[in-house]
Amino acid sequence: MAAVDVGGTAAKAVLLDQDLRVLARAHQPTERTGPGAVAEQVGRLVEELAGRAGTDPVGIGVVVPGIVDDQAGVARYSANLGWRDVPFAALLRGRLDLPVAFGHDVTACGLAEWELGAGRGHRTVAVVPVGTGIAAALLLDGRPYRAGGYAGELGHVDIGHDLRCGCGATGCLEAVASAAALTRRYRERAGRPAHAADAAEVVRSAWAGDPHAAAVLADAVDGLARGLRLLTMLLAPEVVVLGGGLFEAGATLLDAVRDRLAELVTFQPMPRLRLAELGAEAGCLGAGLLAWRAVAGESP
Amino acid sequence: MAAVDVGGTAAKAVLLDQDLRVLARAHQPTERTGPGAVAEQVGRLVEELAGRAGTDPVGIGVVVPGIVDDQAGVARYSANLGWRDVPFAALLRGRLDLPVAFGHDVTACGLAEWELGAGRGHRTVAVVPVGTGIAAALLLDGRPYRAGGYAGELGHVDIGHDLRCGCGATGCLEAVASAAALTRRYRERAGRPAHAADAAEVVRSAWAGDPHAAAVLADAVDGLARGLRLLTMLLAPEVVVLGGGLFEAGATLLDAVRDRLAELVTFQPMPRLRLAELGAEAGCLGAGLLAWRAVAGESP
Repeated sequence: MAAVDVGGTAAKAVLLDQDLRVLARAHQPTERTGPGAVAEQVGRLVEELAGRAGTDPVGIGVVVPGIVDDQAGVARYSANLGWRDVPFAALLRGRLDLPVAFGHDVTACGLAEWELGAGRGHRTVAVVPVGTGIAAALLLDGRPYRAGGYAGELGHVDIGHDLRCGCGATGCLEAVASAAALTRRYRERAGRPAHAADAAEVVRSAWAGDPHAAAVLADAVDGLARGLRLLTMLLAPEVVVLGGGLFEAGATLLDAVRDRLAELVTFQPMPRLRLAELGAEAGCLGAGLLAWRAVAGESP
Repeated sequence: MAAVDVGGTAAKAVLLDQDLRVLARAHQPTERTGPGAVAEQVGRLVEELAGRAGTDPVGIGVVVPGIVDDQAGVARYSANLGWRDVPFAALLRGRLDLPVAFGHDVTACGLAEWELGAGRGHRTVAVVPVGTGIAAALLLDGRPYRAGGYAGELGHVDIGHDLRCGCGATGCLEAVASAAALTRRYRERAGRPAHAADAAEVVRSAWAGDPHAAAVLADAVDGLARGLRLLTMLLAPEVVVLGGGLFEAGATLLDAVRDRLAELVTFQPMPRLRLAELGAEAGCLGAGLLAWRAVAGESP
């Protein structure tokens, strides 16, 4: 099975066996000339994987970021790709002579963590990758909850600060707690771009005593705890899985978020907070799960 | 079928036919001497209904407020009744020689509005009664979402003010927008208890030009819109049904909340806002629906 995670910067592809073991990998910078070019690129990546592994895939799963109506096969809106109402499932079917499953990157990442990673064995789980943006994949009573692609916009809940977000609102979690916000705010404050290569590095600088890094990290930790408090009040998940670029800094950061959340939660049970287990390949693995299920005739 | 909505102040009972038509009504002030006395009271109410209608019920549905684990049959916590971990379903079965369905008042109210009222025909609906407290009954993809009784605590999301809530947190929606908060805050501000008999009256005073009423109403409208924005970001409901004491003031208040929500929602689709249709008897009707389903062997 081929699985492709089309991101804003890179398209990552893997060939998987039925046990989701990776047989081959390939990746390229994402084509910037439109959805047709990206569909072509996915086709080339699949051919490359097939050639490398010496076996043809039986189908393909493809996931993209943004607001994705997987039922309709349409990417409603993706800021990172610059797409609006793109019928990408149909474009892929026009290019590939294979069964195609199409979905949403964060949901696929969630699916992989529910099935194979830090959420396995639980029926009500939120998987929250903290990267360029922040979103939550929701598993409620054992089923993904999607709302036509609009569910889980945790990055845009109002946590009470006065900074403007790219979405037009103020107070959005994403504006202080995404990996992108952490590096941007550190740069603005410290004027030391060399030290802000990635968010995990800002976290480590904070722990090493850099006061600018400590200040932006404190805002991010408080913001994430406030966002998770909202999830807890409305959905009471058993487990919240945190991952993405920010949480490459590891368990100490998770502990800080957990401590702050425990201060904020009054009468609700605390969710268990866990680090994601599958790393940057979770999206591809989830795309593979979607594709295997489509071939088996199951709904995700 | 008998159906009883046990509230903090009154226990309301109805006898319903299979089409949920009300055959008889009875109500009493809720017993304050503990769960055993309330179970006794429910038994007396059912006997009164049976006598009045001249027919014995085939079963009974009973709903209570607070955090209710309907699967376990336990009222985990009810501030209004003063209960903690009460196995009320078992107490009722000990008193009544009838099949008993036990549930949560707000969920029952939601069930009634989904089936018979303002939410019918939709698969993703939040029903939000605004009374002494605020909670949301959630119907997600056609199924009630409960999380063991902990879901939908919309009254305790942080909307960014600095007032303390009874739950111990600051910023809770309930502290400015419940019917109880509206009358309390009006009394504190205006020092005119006579004009604050109920929340709907405060709303009408605001419309009539009373500046104190207008100020507390503005906070409530803004707070409700901020709470509904959070619901929209995380769950993207098609329809939000608003009811309870506050919305007895009617459609003009609903319009004010809708206008403010439209200002706050950036990229998500606006949910349709509707007034509840079933009034104060929604909880009883929902209890009746639960009981009819239990008799038919269906899960709610």
